[in-house]
Parts: sequence; structure tokens; C-alpha cells
Amino acid sequence: MSTIVVGYVPKPEGRAALQRAAEEARMRGARLVVINSNRGGRSMDSDDAIMYEQELDEVRRRLSDDGVEHEVRQLVRGQEPAEDLIAVAEETDADFIVIGLRRRSPVGKLVLGSNAQRILLDAHCPVFAVKAAED
Amino acid sequence: MSTIVVGYVPKPEGRAALQRAAEEARMRGARLVVINSNRGGRSMDSDDAIMYEQELDEVRRRLSDDGVEHEVRQLVRGQEPAEDLIAVAEETDADFIVIGLRRRSPVGKLVLGSNAQRILLDAHCPVFAVKAAED
Repeated sequence: MSTIVVGYVPKPEGRAALQRAAEEARMRGARLVVINSNRGGRSMDSDDAIMYEQELDEVRRRLSDDGVEHEVRQLVRGQEPAEDLIAVAEETDADFIVIGLRRRSPVGKLVLGSNAQRILLDAHCPVFAVKAAED
Repeated sequence: MSTIVVGYVPKPEGRAALQRAAEEARMRGARLVVINSNRGGRSMDSDDAIMYEQELDEVRRRLSDDGVEHEVRQLVRGQEPAEDLIAVAEETDADFIVIGLRRRSPVGKLVLGSNAQRILLDAHCPVFAVKAAED
């Protein structure tokens, strides 16, 4: 059984990535590993932590309903998301990584952030880059 | 029937992109549109043109053998490959675009060239980025 790794954040680009990754996993009969990576520390307070937990519960529920074998990992270990995603993709010998490209509000133009660039260049597997719908 | 668009150049990254795109098309029962884009002009002489033509013949033969419905378009119309790929993806309402990321010889480090960046940011559909195997 192959594995797809997806980077998830509770934002439009994270939801778009997760939705596509779930569709790909279902079509291939692959296992989905959802990574929610936070550096932690001052960038995340307890309200954020509760919101993340609720969103991740909802993610788990939807994947179960869709019959997608999955695992949700919330990583708060002081690393950039790119490092966490690449490490998990190697550990699980992932077929590919799904990432969402974010839009820079308010203009809505897409940006290739440092995490996206790093994943594209440093991951050993292919990278499937999706976009959130425009507002 | 959905469509997958792939950018092809007769180089390791182009072959890696084509191979993966053909696998994805076969698995999904999708149609594959192979784009070989050249600006033309002084950057391409007649030897190059003959080599490209031979490689594309080989591409057509292999896709037929694999039972993948396909179309090969050789575009020489003074545009950057990114522009051609994005235009064809829109015209065919492609499900996604497959691109190969190139390695900068002799160090073998991957680079995100201007065409790759532009396709990632400007294409309306997702982009599947694959890498050539290391030498």
C-alpha cells in the first residue's frame, strides 16, 4: 500500500491540499498521512491550539467517512513545516507530497513561500502543488 | 475523460516527467497531452530539430504501446515553455500539469527555474513536480 503525505493548515490552501490528497488516496487505495506542523513557542497560543485540535478532529472524521485509511500527526517540535514534511515523507517512503500554495491577501496573487520552495527542491519524492480557489 | 498535460524536453527531467505523467494517465484512464515547447530562432539549429523529432517519435511509440490515449504537440512559436504549457492546460481544461525539475550540473542540486516557478504560480490547475533520478 502506497502512502501520500499532505501538509495541512486550517487555511484555504491547507484545505485545498487535504481535499485533493484525500481524492488521490481514495482513487489509488493509498494511505494518507496528514501533517500539521507548528513551530510552537510564541507563534501559537492556547486558542490556536484548541482551534487546530478541533479542525484536526473534523479532518479525521471526514477521512473516516470517506473510507480513506489515514493517520493525522500534529508536530510541534520547533522545526519548519518543510523539514517535518520531508522527514515524514522519507520515513513513510511516500509516493508523493501534496502541498497547498497560498495566496497573498488582499491581492490574491499566489506566492511560492520558503516552505513550498524547500519542499519542491529538497523532498526526494514528487510534489503535487494545489491552489486554493480564488475568493 | 480528463486530461493531463506534461512538459517534455529530451533531458533527464523531461523524461522523468513524461514517465510519471504516462503512469498517471494510464491509472486514471486520462488522455495525455505532451508539450514540447521551443522558442525556436537561434536557440535551435537543424540538428536539434532532427533530434527532437526522433525523440518525439519514440515518445509516441511508447505511449501507444502502453495504451495511453495521447497527443504530442511540438510548439515553436516564440513563447517561453511556461506560457505554452499554461495555455494548453487551459485550452484542454487539464486536471493537472506534470513538470520535471532540473538539476544543475555538475553539482546535481535541483533548481527551481523561472519556467517551473511560473507554471507553479500561474497555472490554474494543480502542478505535479517530479525529479530526475540523481546520476
